Amino acid sequence: MKPVGIIHSPYKNTSEAPYQGCTSEDTSQIEVFKEFEEGLQDIEGFSHIIVIYWFHKSQGYHLLVKTPWDDKPHGVFATRSPHRPCPLGLTVSELLGREKNILKVKGLDAIDGTPVLDIKPYVPPLDESSSTKIGWLEGKLRKGR
Amino acid sequence: MKPVGIIHSPYKNTSEAPYQGCTSEDTSQIEVFKEFEEGLQDIEGFSHIIVIYWFHKSQGYHLLVKTPWDDKPHGVFATRSPHRPCPLGLTVSELLGREKNILKVKGLDAIDGTPVLDIKPYVPPLDESSSTKIGWLEGKLRKGR
Repeated sequence: MKPVGIIHSPYKNTSEAPYQGCTSEDTSQIEVFKEFEEGLQDIEGFSHIIVIYWFHKSQGYHLLVKTPWDDKPHGVFATRSPHRPCPLGLTVSELLGREKNILKVKGLDAIDGTPVLDIKPYVPPLDESSSTKIGWLEGKLRKGR
Repeated sequence: MKPVGIIHSPYKNTSEAPYQGCTSEDTSQIEVFKEFEEGLQDIEGFSHIIVIYWFHKSQGYHLLVKTPWDDKPHGVFATRSPHRPCPLGLTVSELLGREKNILKVKGLDAIDGTPVLDIKPYVPPLDESSSTKIGWLEGKLRKGR
């Protein structure tokens, strides 16, 4: 599993990053390594992309975790904590533009230097659910930074 | 990067699997390995989960690929092809229930035996975009199996 690119973001460390990028107007750049540039063809037709990355600063994990949203611990798979058995991050980001191998995106909460593992087009019929239940997070999401 | 579980699905090979699971009523089971069971606490409160898995049967990739949806090649990052530089699969699945370390889900298009790398709660404010453009896929998604 080798990265296909790297994220250049305004967040130099985790304390600067927003809890979730969707609340932010900040922009980041995804530098896709030159050898993969051809794989970006036609991606600019999509307004949003799914970015899967490696939480490379994450060290270890607990199966029960407390989050910024409440005081109760929850199973790590019921949270978006970066400290996971397999520390994969996932963000749906707005694709503002592409210049050769550089994607300019909004809403990506990863820190500067984060390795990118995959990029996929966001396709509402596939990726949007008629989700009605968000469990322990119900009513808590307004608290953010 | 070690799997946290394995998928038991009705699709024994890729020719049996739907192009995208969201079109199917079939159910699959995600067996989360016993050592990670505690990490599932409270996940049953969510109606949908994001499953990230390893396309373990994928061998190699091309940067330009043809898909079932049209005859033109597109950059692999602008497609959901399983043959990717980093062969990660991602499906938003409906969580029908949990029994201990077993999750019963609908809409997962992975084949039987697929290793699961991560499970995250699906949270509409984070994971739904106001997507308006789906590029080359526009008008093509009705063709499926």
